[in-house]
Amino acid sequence: MVLAVFFDIDDTLYDSTKLTTTARRNSIRAMIDAGLKGDEDEIFEILQKIIKKYGSNYPKHYDELLKELGLPWNPKIIAAGVVAYEHTKAGFLKPFPGVVPTLLKLKNKYKLGVISNGLAVKQWEKLVALGLHHFFEVVVTSQEVGYEKPQKEIFEIAIKKLKLKPEQCVMVGDRLDIDIAGAKLAGMKTIRIKKGKYAKMKPSKEDEKPDYEIKEFEELLDIL
Amino acid sequence: MVLAVFFDIDDTLYDSTKLTTTARRNSIRAMIDAGLKGDEDEIFEILQKIIKKYGSNYPKHYDELLKELGLPWNPKIIAAGVVAYEHTKAGFLKPFPGVVPTLLKLKNKYKLGVISNGLAVKQWEKLVALGLHHFFEVVVTSQEVGYEKPQKEIFEIAIKKLKLKPEQCVMVGDRLDIDIAGAKLAGMKTIRIKKGKYAKMKPSKEDEKPDYEIKEFEELLDIL
Repeated sequence: MVLAVFFDIDDTLYDSTKLTTTARRNSIRAMIDAGLKGDEDEIFEILQKIIKKYGSNYPKHYDELLKELGLPWNPKIIAAGVVAYEHTKAGFLKPFPGVVPTLLKLKNKYKLGVISNGLAVKQWEKLVALGLHHFFEVVVTSQEVGYEKPQKEIFEIAIKKLKLKPEQCVMVGDRLDIDIAGAKLAGMKTIRIKKGKYAKMKPSKEDEKPDYEIKEFEELLDIL
Repeated sequence: MVLAVFFDIDDTLYDSTKLTTTARRNSIRAMIDAGLKGDEDEIFEILQKIIKKYGSNYPKHYDELLKELGLPWNPKIIAAGVVAYEHTKAGFLKPFPGVVPTLLKLKNKYKLGVISNGLAVKQWEKLVALGLHHFFEVVVTSQEVGYEKPQKEIFEIAIKKLKLKPEQCVMVGDRLDIDIAGAKLAGMKTIRIKKGKYAKMKPSKEDEKPDYEIKEFEELLDIL
């Protein structure tokens, strides 16, 4: 019997892929407007590589971008990129359609939680901006527990916080290799939501096969 | 003959005092909503002291606040404060009434510049968010030049960038002790704008007496 439902955040509760792509595009356009020379598409590719290399939480992507382009440090250009990114983010950090009404209904029947890789304050900032920070009884981030998905420990820690057993818990996430594979390893039921840049990916091995697949968040109500 | 007009940013081009006061208030309310226990006014006073002690650019005011209150680190509460501050900031970072039309008129007759204490990217972020980053031919920040107002060198560097002499330049700012005293020391004409938390302050010595005083930004057009 299912007693708790855990969720991933990025590309599960909100459209992280569209947010980051649009915000990066807008930041490049703003930097070009502020004096950066170059082709938007080429700069976008370079920026993507820098973010991949340094990680998305590195605070100086635009400083690295100028270096990579052989240009001197320029606070006007960097500031234009930062402000455009932040303004775009504020506009896009909204739950997927159906998330709030679905969570409200699920909350009547189940305990709800979040299991997320990333920095605790950064992930909580997303929940706050999404207006979802009061919905979850437990929020576990990799920074706080020292394990990250797909390691089974992070799932086990979250389950223990609710004093439940793995088979009483469902994990909902977009990533087959991280959310689904990890939760299966921990003995949970799994639901994959086909959202974001991995929406079309197929399981590469048995461990990545979810129990259920959904396209829209409301479909959770049919399964649970 | 006046050929250039330099401006301070905070409380000269926009209402920095109201922004920071309102944003801090909103951040405390959001943190209380997220589980912080305590009286809003008392917490506000403690936060003000922390910001005074660590400076406004220190990135962990809310971590310090929890420590000061004897509470454990809590990413939910910190995130609630950060998001409320950022959302309030985005709404309040607008030029004072009259700033844009006045700058557009001044730009026909004078070179325009900014002389600002602070971190280069942070100060440029304000100009970008205000929509003013294309208005100024020179923007000098204390971080970049290694001098800060009221040191006369920061004014002299800004003036040299425009290849002008001090007596050809006017400084407009809200702080008698920083903007006016420093610009006078450098030999510039000075206009004090009575805005923000220092609006009612009186010059404490001869060096702080501005050539002109205005209450509204448009009054610059009567003087210049």
